[in-house]
Amino acid sequence: MSTQHLDGIKACVFDAYGTLFDFNSAALAASDEIGENWQRLSELWRQKQLQYTWLRGLASRHADFWQVTGEALDFALNTLGIDRPGLRERLMDLYLHLGCYPEVPETLHRLQAEGMRLAILSNGTPAMLAAVVHHSGLENVFDAVLSVEEVGVFKPHPAVYALACERLQLAPTAICFLSSNAWDAYSAKASGLRVLWCNRFGQVRERIPETPDGEIKDLSALPDAVSSPVCGREAMGESPTRL
Amino acid sequence: MSTQHLDGIKACVFDAYGTLFDFNSAALAASDEIGENWQRLSELWRQKQLQYTWLRGLASRHADFWQVTGEALDFALNTLGIDRPGLRERLMDLYLHLGCYPEVPETLHRLQAEGMRLAILSNGTPAMLAAVVHHSGLENVFDAVLSVEEVGVFKPHPAVYALACERLQLAPTAICFLSSNAWDAYSAKASGLRVLWCNRFGQVRERIPETPDGEIKDLSALPDAVSSPVCGREAMGESPTRL
Repeated sequence: MSTQHLDGIKACVFDAYGTLFDFNSAALAASDEIGENWQRLSELWRQKQLQYTWLRGLASRHADFWQVTGEALDFALNTLGIDRPGLRERLMDLYLHLGCYPEVPETLHRLQAEGMRLAILSNGTPAMLAAVVHHSGLENVFDAVLSVEEVGVFKPHPAVYALACERLQLAPTAICFLSSNAWDAYSAKASGLRVLWCNRFGQVRERIPETPDGEIKDLSALPDAVSSPVCGREAMGESPTRL
Repeated sequence: MSTQHLDGIKACVFDAYGTLFDFNSAALAASDEIGENWQRLSELWRQKQLQYTWLRGLASRHADFWQVTGEALDFALNTLGIDRPGLRERLMDLYLHLGCYPEVPETLHRLQAEGMRLAILSNGTPAMLAAVVHHSGLENVFDAVLSVEEVGVFKPHPAVYALACERLQLAPTAICFLSSNAWDAYSAKASGLRVLWCNRFGQVRERIPETPDGEIKDLSALPDAVSSPVCGREAMGESPTRL
């Protein structure tokens, strides 16, 4: 899988946590209290958070992402034997103020200037997503901020990816979905969207249906990958590989 | 959660991998080839195997456990940069010959002698389960070896746990389900079975619906926990805590 040019893209739809916003920034910001275990806590918290979404989804026991995030944090703190008064509340509040990855603002503004429609499609609740978008000053960038709460089940249920098409009133092939979570990227492709896997963490490919259209290291490569040939790369003499 | 006595149990139903059979025994047996990474490989293989079952379940993209186990192994080998000719095939064959935990044969034979009905309820395919049962000489112990292949979806989908009731023709409250996989134990309880979590690995409790009836360290504590009061513990002068 390599970076390829995708034609006919009318909207870029982004996963939130891990793709636009750095979930490690919460535990890092509290590392003064957590100590050297902050990375281990962050990993365990994230791993359990995702596991709980999948288990609840498959068992038809949905609870919103705020609850699941708190329950996963309780598990992680408990596992590491961390029991400091107020730390849970502090970390949950930090989850509402995650930093975005460095290239995100410029990339989004460039795409917006080129007329690309932009959206978020995330497990997060509307309130969680509004908070992180506001914290990064991205309120005026997105045409839609879509939460799985609208369908009542977590990713990778196909209803989640279908929501992007419905709300943007676009065919799946006119949407480029971006996720740093490999399983999310593969699953979105299996639901018919076109997908670039933003492989920030240098992971090997997944072995689940189906393979994304391409892979980028971070989002800075996105504008060139989806720009219109008329005003974009071809006009500048480049010959991107076509799908 | 502590060990408590469960009344009215007519059948004990066991998860297979991690509960009766030691999935680490595959990578350990090939540690001559894998080297010091064998534990890391085993963990990654298992973690990915489960992740793929949940992702496929939630996305309605079922494939059988043999395929998923092989795909998870490919991911794990790839991630660790292990590429030795024949090793994949060797490990997959070892997965058909996993060892059982030390207390398993005696525990099962004791339960059988006391008239308890015994079954397996597992993600494994019928062929995979037949192989590990045979390898441990347990062919004549189980009344039923049930595979999720009968319902076409992985745990923790409620249809899996319902299968045990259907096939054993027992009410869920007459079944004691045993799993060392905490998420499996909690999910079985949420599906109405009575459950003892066999917490082999000393994990903290999960934060998902619903809490098992009790917790044991390994299966050797099981016969006393489910024995009939008439011929069991009370006749011997003990006073187990009742639920």
